[in-house]
Amino acid sequence: MASVIKPAERVRKQKRDVWSIINEAAALAPKQPIVNLGQGFFGYNPPQFVRDAAKSAVERVDCNQYAPPKGRPSLRKAVADSYSPLWGKDINPDTEVLVTTGANEGMLSAWMAFLDPGDEVIVFEPVFDQYLSNIEMPGGKVVYVSLLPPPDGVVKNSSAAEWGLDMTALENAVTPKTKMIVINTPHNPTGKVFSREELLAIGNLCVKNNIMILSDEVYDRLSYVPFTRTATLSPEIANLTITVGSGGKMFWATGWRVGWLIGPEHLIRYCTAAHTRICYCGVSPLQEGFADGLYLADKTSFWDESKKDMTRRMETLNEIWDELEIPYCKPDGGYMILANFSKVKIPEGYRFPAELEDRPHDFKLAWFLIMELGVASIPTSEFYAEANWDQSHNWLRFAVCKNFDVLEEAKSRLRGLKKYIEA
Amino acid sequence: MASVIKPAERVRKQKRDVWSIINEAAALAPKQPIVNLGQGFFGYNPPQFVRDAAKSAVERVDCNQYAPPKGRPSLRKAVADSYSPLWGKDINPDTEVLVTTGANEGMLSAWMAFLDPGDEVIVFEPVFDQYLSNIEMPGGKVVYVSLLPPPDGVVKNSSAAEWGLDMTALENAVTPKTKMIVINTPHNPTGKVFSREELLAIGNLCVKNNIMILSDEVYDRLSYVPFTRTATLSPEIANLTITVGSGGKMFWATGWRVGWLIGPEHLIRYCTAAHTRICYCGVSPLQEGFADGLYLADKTSFWDESKKDMTRRMETLNEIWDELEIPYCKPDGGYMILANFSKVKIPEGYRFPAELEDRPHDFKLAWFLIMELGVASIPTSEFYAEANWDQSHNWLRFAVCKNFDVLEEAKSRLRGLKKYIEA
Ligand SMILES: Cc1ncc(COP(=O)(O)O)c(C=O)c1O
Ligand SMILES: Cc1ncc(COP(=O)(O)O)c(C=O)c1O
Repeated sequence: MASVIKPAERVRKQKRDVWSIINEAAALAPKQPIVNLGQGFFGYNPPQFVRDAAKSAVERVDCNQYAPPKGRPSLRKAVADSYSPLWGKDINPDTEVLVTTGANEGMLSAWMAFLDPGDEVIVFEPVFDQYLSNIEMPGGKVVYVSLLPPPDGVVKNSSAAEWGLDMTALENAVTPKTKMIVINTPHNPTGKVFSREELLAIGNLCVKNNIMILSDEVYDRLSYVPFTRTATLSPEIANLTITVGSGGKMFWATGWRVGWLIGPEHLIRYCTAAHTRICYCGVSPLQEGFADGLYLADKTSFWDESKKDMTRRMETLNEIWDELEIPYCKPDGGYMILANFSKVKIPEGYRFPAELEDRPHDFKLAWFLIMELGVASIPTSEFYAEANWDQSHNWLRFAVCKNFDVLEEAKSRLRGLKKYIEA
Repeated sequence: MASVIKPAERVRKQKRDVWSIINEAAALAPKQPIVNLGQGFFGYNPPQFVRDAAKSAVERVDCNQYAPPKGRPSLRKAVADSYSPLWGKDINPDTEVLVTTGANEGMLSAWMAFLDPGDEVIVFEPVFDQYLSNIEMPGGKVVYVSLLPPPDGVVKNSSAAEWGLDMTALENAVTPKTKMIVINTPHNPTGKVFSREELLAIGNLCVKNNIMILSDEVYDRLSYVPFTRTATLSPEIANLTITVGSGGKMFWATGWRVGWLIGPEHLIRYCTAAHTRICYCGVSPLQEGFADGLYLADKTSFWDESKKDMTRRMETLNEIWDELEIPYCKPDGGYMILANFSKVKIPEGYRFPAELEDRPHDFKLAWFLIMELGVASIPTSEFYAEANWDQSHNWLRFAVCKNFDVLEEAKSRLRGLKKYIEA
């Protein structure tokens, strides 16, 4: 029967997202299974101590029932205890922490809590694409400010720190309607860790103009350089900052959907109101897993080991770029590698599906890589507004949070690129 | 530091919800611990087979990572397999099922998918209060149609079937802006199971006026009378109906936050788009718990036992109403009991907190019960629009999904009411 029901404006004109295009390509590829370095899920289990804590919670009556909307007391306390030393202040677990259904729903709560239709939110490009539809849901308007790419990144190796903040562009983007600036550090997809100076400049601009900051720090435990937390810069900056965390990212369990917001009570209170309406409360038993996890990680050398482990995975994959002389950008945080595929020449006349016709070249490169080599990655133009697609410069994003044998297989497949690279 | 950040309109003017008022009273009460028959969480664990399935999923790599946005294939298939016989048609697990973060987020997804600002949604009063803020989030306008209360419910025992559907009022409530009617069967808080005739009348009205139906059937496995599923009434009705389910309700695990929507592809598709933006995907490992749970429940006598078990709990509590000669309404489904407290006289001059001053009398009765007897319930005026508070008639709602010793303790405490009841 034909549909007679019209969907809402907010879902009507959806462009297909990169994840479904890439997944569809992966399903069609001749080489199966695909080596999937596209999406940032982990190829291995969360640590045993986290799994054990979750499993024992599944046997406890109270852990299987609705949590308080703001989160189970155990996890709120664990977050406050783990972060208070890092913030250099006592975080109040009852008023300054909100447990959410993944960082994603946490950010949506913040946007639902503070955006009235027409309010503007500034984001830095390339930008994690999930933000965009989330900001638009409550009627917010996304305003893009581009990070300046590493000057020679297309021709030689670069460092994530070379992604530059253009303060003049940022200042020019501020209008009387600017409600919020979203910072993401460590940054997806570039791996940039914002310096203290950069964050201070952004923070002071916000204080001056009474603009909120949403600081997405989901990769905070994976910073390979000294890490500055936005909320620690000054009391004035802290007063308008909400910080985002993700248990799934720090404990390799993206499917558990437990994250949190930390911030001053006068902001968290409204996020809690919005969160309560979005999903009532977060996932109970898995909150216990992360509560125990935070204590055990702090008591042991887990955070250090976890960084070392991820560094090894990055080094493993990066050997192939050196071998192929494909320039890549060395991340200062997170687990995404950008490699620049401008040198790779797709044979003339190569056939792409019609839906790629109006997409930038990096989509075609990603498609080609899947079809010809059996390796999936994410084209970074997805992280740019259409008007700025020309800035995306053929970077492809590879997630290295995968098993070593998978990374080795990726390398061996990527060697097949040699014949498509011009000398 | 004072807040300078203004919250969004949608969270600014929040009235305090009943749950926080009742919880606060419970914390202040002299008799501790309180016997809490307020909120509908279970006082016991989900069945062992469900817990075991979840725990073994926590050891599997793929179960710990992001699920596909529409849900893990195992659970989508389990839902389709379990419901296809009940629906008398083959439900397609790939296109007609969406796994959500609890029924709550499922319904929000449906409203986000279909409501443009100003669209009207008709709900039946008394109405589960969560709907209201969820409908308002995407800009929908709630239109109330009252169920007619049992004619003599205030003075003698009644049956949930006596809550009457006023088709004339419903027809009069339909306007050109009516986008959706929300049905809840079995109904919270009355325990009413809508009859086939009632559902057909509503369904045909919707077909005639091209109105969607959101059929909240989260208590479908707890119907003590023959149960009609809205989507089975006719192909035309099915074509505009989205049905809501909740694993948490059927398997006594409200904190797991796994629910689902079932409906025709042309509707589910947009719900999936909205859901993906709200929380990206649902909770992975616990989806496996319910997937296995559905198969095992269907293979064994779990559904029957579960109904018998809940019937025993209801019978246990209801003895006290007979003893006190407090009229109650016998539910045909679910696990909520309405008892009518009009006969209970609060001593003159009894002091209530200021925030109860502008609330109807049932709030005071609920407060009094907590403070004097140590028993928590929910005042049903919370489920009425302010304009219709006079229709709420001093019904208090008691959730019986609690341990038998808790129910016995509730009875023994409620006996203390005798001295407040006029002969
Ligand atoms: C920058 C950033 N923020 C937030 C998220 C979402 O985190 P979660 O899985 O906890 O919702 C991601 C996931 O990829 C991310 O990359
Ligand atoms: C009628 C009704 N619908 C939906 C829900 C929410 O279900 P879930 O816990 O799966 O979000 C409830 C919970 O009390 C309910 O009573």
